Amino acid sequence: MDFSLSSKSEDLRKRVGTFMDQHVYAAEKDVLSHERADSHEEHPVMKEIRKKAKAEGLWNLFLPDKEFGAGLTNHEYAPLCELMGRSPLGARAFNCMAPDTGNMEILAEYGSKDQKDRWLKKCLDGEIRTCFSMTEPDTPGSDPTQLKTRAVRQGDYYVINGHKWFTSGAIGAAFAIAMVVTDPDAEPHRRASQIIVPTDTPGFNLIRPVPVMGHVGGGGHCEIIYKDCKVPITALLGGEGDGFAISQARLGPGRIHHCMRTIGIAERALELMCKRANTRWTHGSLLADKANIQEWIADSRIEIDSTRLMVMNAAWKMDTLGKKEARKEISMIKVMAANMVMRVLDRAIQLYGAAGVSDDYPIARFWRESRALRIADGPDEVHRQTIARRELRAWK
Amino acid sequence: MDFSLSSKSEDLRKRVGTFMDQHVYAAEKDVLSHERADSHEEHPVMKEIRKKAKAEGLWNLFLPDKEFGAGLTNHEYAPLCELMGRSPLGARAFNCMAPDTGNMEILAEYGSKDQKDRWLKKCLDGEIRTCFSMTEPDTPGSDPTQLKTRAVRQGDYYVINGHKWFTSGAIGAAFAIAMVVTDPDAEPHRRASQIIVPTDTPGFNLIRPVPVMGHVGGGGHCEIIYKDCKVPITALLGGEGDGFAISQARLGPGRIHHCMRTIGIAERALELMCKRANTRWTHGSLLADKANIQEWIADSRIEIDSTRLMVMNAAWKMDTLGKKEARKEISMIKVMAANMVMRVLDRAIQLYGAAGVSDDYPIARFWRESRALRIADGPDEVHRQTIARRELRAWK
Amino acid sequence: MDFSLSSKSEDLRKRVGTFMDQHVYAAEKDVLSHERADSHEEHPVMKEIRKKAKAEGLWNLFLPDKEFGAGLTNHEYAPLCELMGRSPLGARAFNCMAPDTGNMEILAEYGSKDQKDRWLKKCLDGEIRTCFSMTEPDTPGSDPTQLKTRAVRQGDYYVINGHKWFTSGAIGAAFAIAMVVTDPDAEPHRRASQIIVPTDTPGFNLIRPVPVMGHVGGGGHCEIIYKDCKVPITALLGGEGDGFAISQARLGPGRIHHCMRTIGIAERALELMCKRANTRWTHGSLLADKANIQEWIADSRIEIDSTRLMVMNAAWKMDTLGKKEARKEISMIKVMAANMVMRVLDRAIQLYGAAGVSDDYPIARFWRESRALRIADGPDEVHRQTIARRELRAWK
Amino acid sequence: MDFSLSSKSEDLRKRVGTFMDQHVYAAEKDVLSHERADSHEEHPVMKEIRKKAKAEGLWNLFLPDKEFGAGLTNHEYAPLCELMGRSPLGARAFNCMAPDTGNMEILAEYGSKDQKDRWLKKCLDGEIRTCFSMTEPDTPGSDPTQLKTRAVRQGDYYVINGHKWFTSGAIGAAFAIAMVVTDPDAEPHRRASQIIVPTDTPGFNLIRPVPVMGHVGGGGHCEIIYKDCKVPITALLGGEGDGFAISQARLGPGRIHHCMRTIGIAERALELMCKRANTRWTHGSLLADKANIQEWIADSRIEIDSTRLMVMNAAWKMDTLGKKEARKEISMIKVMAANMVMRVLDRAIQLYGAAGVSDDYPIARFWRESRALRIADGPDEVHRQTIARRELRAWK
Repeated sequence: MDFSLSSKSEDLRKRVGTFMDQHVYAAEKDVLSHERADSHEEHPVMKEIRKKAKAEGLWNLFLPDKEFGAGLTNHEYAPLCELMGRSPLGARAFNCMAPDTGNMEILAEYGSKDQKDRWLKKCLDGEIRTCFSMTEPDTPGSDPTQLKTRAVRQGDYYVINGHKWFTSGAIGAAFAIAMVVTDPDAEPHRRASQIIVPTDTPGFNLIRPVPVMGHVGGGGHCEIIYKDCKVPITALLGGEGDGFAISQARLGPGRIHHCMRTIGIAERALELMCKRANTRWTHGSLLADKANIQEWIADSRIEIDSTRLMVMNAAWKMDTLGKKEARKEISMIKVMAANMVMRVLDRAIQLYGAAGVSDDYPIARFWRESRALRIADGPDEVHRQTIARRELRAWK
Repeated sequence: MDFSLSSKSEDLRKRVGTFMDQHVYAAEKDVLSHERADSHEEHPVMKEIRKKAKAEGLWNLFLPDKEFGAGLTNHEYAPLCELMGRSPLGARAFNCMAPDTGNMEILAEYGSKDQKDRWLKKCLDGEIRTCFSMTEPDTPGSDPTQLKTRAVRQGDYYVINGHKWFTSGAIGAAFAIAMVVTDPDAEPHRRASQIIVPTDTPGFNLIRPVPVMGHVGGGGHCEIIYKDCKVPITALLGGEGDGFAISQARLGPGRIHHCMRTIGIAERALELMCKRANTRWTHGSLLADKANIQEWIADSRIEIDSTRLMVMNAAWKMDTLGKKEARKEISMIKVMAANMVMRVLDRAIQLYGAAGVSDDYPIARFWRESRALRIADGPDEVHRQTIARRELRAWK
Repeated sequence: MDFSLSSKSEDLRKRVGTFMDQHVYAAEKDVLSHERADSHEEHPVMKEIRKKAKAEGLWNLFLPDKEFGAGLTNHEYAPLCELMGRSPLGARAFNCMAPDTGNMEILAEYGSKDQKDRWLKKCLDGEIRTCFSMTEPDTPGSDPTQLKTRAVRQGDYYVINGHKWFTSGAIGAAFAIAMVVTDPDAEPHRRASQIIVPTDTPGFNLIRPVPVMGHVGGGGHCEIIYKDCKVPITALLGGEGDGFAISQARLGPGRIHHCMRTIGIAERALELMCKRANTRWTHGSLLADKANIQEWIADSRIEIDSTRLMVMNAAWKMDTLGKKEARKEISMIKVMAANMVMRVLDRAIQLYGAAGVSDDYPIARFWRESRALRIADGPDEVHRQTIARRELRAWK
Repeated sequence: MDFSLSSKSEDLRKRVGTFMDQHVYAAEKDVLSHERADSHEEHPVMKEIRKKAKAEGLWNLFLPDKEFGAGLTNHEYAPLCELMGRSPLGARAFNCMAPDTGNMEILAEYGSKDQKDRWLKKCLDGEIRTCFSMTEPDTPGSDPTQLKTRAVRQGDYYVINGHKWFTSGAIGAAFAIAMVVTDPDAEPHRRASQIIVPTDTPGFNLIRPVPVMGHVGGGGHCEIIYKDCKVPITALLGGEGDGFAISQARLGPGRIHHCMRTIGIAERALELMCKRANTRWTHGSLLADKANIQEWIADSRIEIDSTRLMVMNAAWKMDTLGKKEARKEISMIKVMAANMVMRVLDRAIQLYGAAGVSDDYPIARFWRESRALRIADGPDEVHRQTIARRELRAWK
């Protein structure tokens, strides 16, 4: 048993941390206030930061593939991912932002040579953005057997019809990877396939960015209606019916990333809490000296550290035993991290008072944006069911 | 002991309920999406609704003063206030929106004849909007002894200098009632006074609407710098040093209103939860038939009903024994309602999944806007301290 | 709306309170330490107290029947019941202890003249103790359709066979009222009947007091095997198949009583918390001055007061609209009170430190004995289901 | 980073597990029901088990000292300790029970040759039991500067006077290690010393086993009055003034042990929950298929696994960086484990219904006995303060 990081990971952690300190935090105010203006264009400051990160080799660190990426295991990348999560700009600065990371991963793993040449390289170079089109308004995302969007084979084409939403980042994206039913009569987990759909394909109708927590900025969480949207069969990722398996493959690392970024958010919030508590004087003492505030801080530290250990353990298990073996662990961290961050952020808001609900600090933004984490990639309830069933089975 | 409403209250409850059903809910989508456009101008639909409510005599129901208002006691008005809270448009529809209600109340109670003629009547008629300028960025709002903004008497004028924020609704308001220190050497609770400051007074510098949860729309939660802002001494409300006492006077009923509106929000959320649970099918059954969903609904019902009884009891105690006697009860409902609503809304979001964080339902809006309730008018922690001290004193 | 008590109720409240102060609390140490010795004999001090209470007319106050009892409505009796709950000796002191109260109620309501003469009068006089034999080890108590114990008619007798446990107070009881299946083929809620079984009937085999939280003292929570236990048909309470209906009739008021006693326990705990906090000095200040301790006290006050209002409201609704109309309210208070008291007691234990888990104070006893309240008379989960279903039905 | 156990630890884990399965669980009913009879004599079955464990070399595994014990590091011993915690008999079976473990550890580390010869060997051989006499009724145990019991040097003797309680296991113990003030004028952390006091020393007055949760059995949690209790100066452990330092030395590993045993308790409870859920049918389905029960199981698994990782990490840090460096981690696991186990046990009780509060399963016993863990060795509140202060200091 050894809880220390590998020297490779430790070294990159320092470099990423230094880069965040030097370039990222300072740019937040500028970049984030600009984002409010409902634009999906990249802020020039952000462009500059990305150029620097790329130049320093702090780029595509998420990608385990040695040819295309940094070749780090999940548990080696995890601590870097945490650091990136500390700022709303972090992941993008290092070209490690969802959903592009997942798209790049599956292109690297399942993409044909042609698909890699046409799409993957531009993603890796940071030239294009992408989106992932799975969630549907009328079917529960956590129950893949209910998926409705259809792709019907017609000669050398698939014709796609269906209704999606929460296709995040669709505005400005070069292509979507769409999860569609290719064979409704197959057994449930072989019904769906994943297909690359360039966003300029006729019939890819971007209806609107769904306002989320009142916001519609950036690439949006978009509602899309596929109406006789025709793509060549070479756009199929992997084989027909592989959609669910590819989803699982992307979800494992994706959830590790999400969880670690979430831990980064919580660490940032805890830092902000401590700084405020050390300086704010009310009712006769510093906040730092009040027993209830101390409990918020102590509980936050406990919850963050225990979540991190769980995520690291899940990553390590995934790296050493495989994604399938780590399924329970991944469900556990999904539930744990998404709930933990909301508790920590809630305390941070309360500690900051009026300033806590304002956007003068990143706390309120983190809070309203993180709420979706308990829903996305499977709601708490579905993951808890997964965990319980495995536990119960062991004692049958 | 009798838990039934008076016939007067019961009758108005039906009329307000019917009005909400006929006019208010249906207007939400239109009016609220328009609000996003950063305008403080009243939406034409809203103007129409207000005209109708006024015509039906459902107007200024909040005001206990029989000359100027409906003459209802707090516990008679409370159930109406709950109904209004069910929609983000409700309170405004009936001219019962904060902070105007509090301003009208104190004008009716403490205003000079001149002040009433000049300001109160227009408020009652719904011609002008107003704001209340108390919170400061550098001092904890819950500790009035630390208030910094100063008004110095110079001849027949007060000259105000200071820094405020979260002066809600300042954009478009006709005047602010500002809480300022007139005598820093007086005993703590006699230091402050309240002064009417027309927003077009030179030196009333509206810096910006502070972005709250990413929003800056409507009248804003504004940052204001008073810089040699000069108002005649006739603008003083009550006497010098009465500021804290007037605050207390406004806070009692104000908190009852807040709490009842909050209950209305929670009831709306519970209704939405039930409707969704009754129709949404996932993983082999309706949500309504799953034991965890049932617990969310049951707990919400318990929490809502118990909070309502506490608020009604506080209102009744305030009406029969006076505001001072009801102070512990008011602190209790402040904590209880603000926390309850967040739990109920959180469950509603989770039950709705992706739709829950979108603005296609009012849930996400209620959630992000209600978070401030645990901070405004004294954070949970200060109210808990008040309650505990009274409790502890009883056993000394 | 009026939250004040009737003068009759208020007057009795004072008298019961005074009696508790003068006689009951002081006897706790003696009587309770004696109880540990596994005896079901009444302690002489307790006998004395009961004699006094009877002499003062503070006797059978629970019984709404005007002929046999005090004739108080449920909401008039409730505040008295709360006071009795403040001491483990309270209910017994005034002959208002479960399960005798429920047994007396149903004897008064459903008993034949003969049954009243033979059993009810002695109960009312405090000469005998009784028990209620419903729960079975092999069937979930909350699901009456699964009940197994059978009574088969043979001529003028019923022959009972079955397995019960948690028949509280069976040791030393004169009779049990047993819930048994008389017609397994009837529709579910008409299958069972209630029959009076004198404990000296052959075939009434008292196996053991089930150790509960390590204790077997007093009348015990007994395991009983009915083996060809023969009782005359005149022992039937009400008609055949009325068992479930009678249960419902007893449960309504019974739950009000349980809840109010529970509130009494919580009030006692809060008093003890305040007293300790006011005098215990640690780490540089009194406990009373620490913000976390203050939160425990404030939250306890909020939770107690809101639970009390809910119980009073349920009692009032039951009194004015009937037991059936108040079913949702009764389920709500059942869940609320049983959970509330555990939270308050948990805080009290923590505040007292080592002394909190000792039996030098009544806190640890209240805590370990109250845990069963979340299970007895229907577990939380079943009551929540009841509440949710009614709520959901309203929006179908 | 490597989350796997060393082969030595893994091997012992299997052997301890097998021993538990073969000998320990089966003996619980017998041994535990006998314990209720207020005797401190060892049950013959227990004697037999201990003999077997010793013969198999599963003995004193806790002791890191290679001469006297198994020479395992804390993180190697931890998984064994978890297994022992699964039964109330486990620790004693392997001679790894508190407070003897702590006493043996400090005798091995600080004891003179003479002290080791006279006391340590008999402890290691399992011939005698011991106790630790620190907590005082009148001073908060968590604030060592308030300690009152005095030892005054008189020639070659210390004369001890003072009042202790919660000296666990004093009945039948050969000696107590007493924490006493030897120099009240020294700086706070040098005031106390630890002295070995044979329990047959005149003036060592065992007043009573303090009833804890209604129980007084076994060695008791005893109240002791030291009245002119005279011991030779050779009974001093380490040097004068070392008392606090020795306490710290024992507390580190002691808390790891406590936490791991606690995890064992929780694992046992979770196993029992699953078994019951898999077989109990209520209201139309197995408990295992109800969403709320599934959540209890899933949350328990998450909480147990995350606590275990935190404890392993603290142990590893203590082993690699030293006790002092791991202080924050140890405070964190103390809070986390003690609270976690109560939540898990509470769910287990609820799942078992009436059986859950009975002593037919070990759940109720675990629940009532584990409550003290949030108080012993420093209450939650003090540990949270420790954690918070370190966190806050980092951002000053």
